[in-house]
Formats: sequence, C-alpha cells, structure tokens
Amino acid sequence: MYGFPETLERLVRHLSSLPGIGRKSATRIALRLMDWEVPEVREFARTLVDARERTLRCTICGSFTEQETCAVCRDERRDARLVCVVERPSDVLAVERTGRHRGRYHVLGGLLSPLDGVGPEDLRIDELVARAAAGELGEIILALNPTTEGEATALYIARLLTPHGVRVTRPASGLPVGGELDLADELTLGTALDERRDV
Amino acid sequence: MYGFPETLERLVRHLSSLPGIGRKSATRIALRLMDWEVPEVREFARTLVDARERTLRCTICGSFTEQETCAVCRDERRDARLVCVVERPSDVLAVERTGRHRGRYHVLGGLLSPLDGVGPEDLRIDELVARAAAGELGEIILALNPTTEGEATALYIARLLTPHGVRVTRPASGLPVGGELDLADELTLGTALDERRDV
Repeated sequence: MYGFPETLERLVRHLSSLPGIGRKSATRIALRLMDWEVPEVREFARTLVDARERTLRCTICGSFTEQETCAVCRDERRDARLVCVVERPSDVLAVERTGRHRGRYHVLGGLLSPLDGVGPEDLRIDELVARAAAGELGEIILALNPTTEGEATALYIARLLTPHGVRVTRPASGLPVGGELDLADELTLGTALDERRDV
Repeated sequence: MYGFPETLERLVRHLSSLPGIGRKSATRIALRLMDWEVPEVREFARTLVDARERTLRCTICGSFTEQETCAVCRDERRDARLVCVVERPSDVLAVERTGRHRGRYHVLGGLLSPLDGVGPEDLRIDELVARAAAGELGEIILALNPTTEGEATALYIARLLTPHGVRVTRPASGLPVGGELDLADELTLGTALDERRDV
C-alpha cells in the first residue's frame, strides 16, 4: 500500500504528538504546510526553536519570561505583598485579562494529584512558603481550578502559609456572569446560594 | 497588561494560522512545546523543514513523492491504463487504504469553484487530458467529493475525456457500509434507492 513519503509521514507523526491533535488533524496540518512556501516553513520552524530557547521561567514567580524575572515581578507599581497563586503560566494571562489583580503571581506548575504521582515536591510550593517566611507576603489569592485537585492543593498550601501570618483567600465560586441561572450545574448554583451576598 | 513573552507570543500566532487551530488550541500547543526538551523541539523544527523541502509532486500524477515520480507511478504491477482522479494527495491515501484500486492516480489539486475563483487552469486538468490524448488511458475513475463542486468538476472532465475514447466512471453513491438506514440523510438514502442493485 502506498503512503505518504517518509519525511512527510514523520511530520504527521510529530504533529500527532501535540495535545488535542489526532492523526486526522495532523494530516490536514501537514498538507497545509506543504502548500506553504519554503521560506515560510523555515520561518515557522525558527520561531518554534526560538520560542523554546528564549522562553525562560521567572526566577521569582515561575511565569514565562525572556529575562531573569518576568515583566510583572519587575513592575514596581504592582503590589509585591499581594500574590495570586495559579497552576500554570497560561492562568497568569487569564487573570491579567481581567485587569482586576494589582499584585504579582506565583506559578505552581501543577496541582497535587496523588493518583498521577504529583506530590508537593513536584510543585513550586517550597518557593512560595519561602516567600511567605521571608515576610514578603501580605495576602495570597489561591486562584486554582475549582476541582478536587485544586481544592486539595489550596487546602494544603493554606495550612503551610497560615503560620506565617499571611491572609489566604480564594476567588468566589458562583454563577458565571452573563450566564443563565437554569443552565448552571447544581454544584455551581448550590455554591452560589450558600455564598449569597447582601445586595 | 502582562502577556506572553514576545517569541512565545509569535509562536502562538504562527500556530493559530494552521487549519483547525484557534487561539486557544495554539496556546495549549505552545505551552506543551515549552515543556519539551530543546533537542526535541529542534528535531521537530527540522522535521518540519525537511518535510517541506523533500516532499515533491510526482511529475506524472501529482502525488507527494521524494523522487521525480511517486511509488505508485513507478510500480510496474499497477495498471497504468486505469487512473483514479482525486482532488488532493490525501485522497490518494484514502483510496489506497481500501486496497481496491489496482491502477494509478491523477491529483487535480482542487475542484472547480467559480465562486472561489478556481478555474480549469488552476487544476491539473490539462495534464490529465494529455495523458488521455496520448492513448495511455483506458478507464478513468473520477473519485471526487459528492458535492456540488465535485459533481461540476467530474462533469467538466468527463466531457473533455469522452472524445479520447476513455471510459469515465464514478464510485457508487449510497448507504455507508455498516451504517444504519435511518441515520442516512435523505439525499444519500434517495440516491441509494435510485441506484439499487439486484441481489
């Protein structure tokens, strides 16, 4: 049976290993790339390598940066005593898009998940405790996913930080703004009722 | 507002330009790539460029190949007088997977689509007619999508080839094998009834 030539087949296999890309999408992408001009493909490949090589982790918060520290940690106008703890660098972007956080960040690099073999030593928890122990922090917002792993990780961190006199908070759970009440799942609606606020 | 560092942002934009990949998927893929080791990313980038540079079009049928002609056109056991006409190189693979075609191929590179400005001169139709005019062809199977564009392209080609004494056929339309009758759309079921065969 005739198939794609070897190098093209190799590209399809490589593309299939990317998250959310199956064999079919990989083939579609590879075919599209075959229509690109060679200089365009070279430019794409260069961007790929450049991005991987130049993107470092901020030595303070763990966000992506091309310098030793990230733009937020370098920004003197951002409140250094207010730190938002998130799972991944992409969460930093999500919080930044809200424009509501005037402090800094701490990226854990994951969530506790005993079943997947992810323990405290696999996350940047020690670094966070060190920041708290150094008296650098006033409030920590645990902006982790409202899932079992997120809750467990938040509780674990809260317990470690309380002795250091840090205020530990979490974003509110409740109805999505702009959403419809009868479309909310029971857990979300239940939480929204439990945590109701005076108007 | 803080965003991804410049090079990483550039990678996300590049990835977003691939078919079927939106901003969100592109971000997820870029983040995964940041977790890869540098040599892995380099290898991926090299595969990308290699695939584009080494993948040529068969000078006879238009399929992908790394040589002047493709493996099918070089294969003496394949019937050179029976040619399956398809839209894209990936269609060649689809037909090959069936194991039912013992002839060769001709890749058009698209379908006639006046609305998108695709005319006969944009497709490899002249090359096909030349193959027929040279008396090389006995039967041509027009394996084009059963869509308006596919039908129009098939009719157009059939009209050009008939004067050359070539038998022109199309794959049967009908119920998908293994599918359920009541799940077939009306057009498919209607066609299947119109083109019913004796048992």
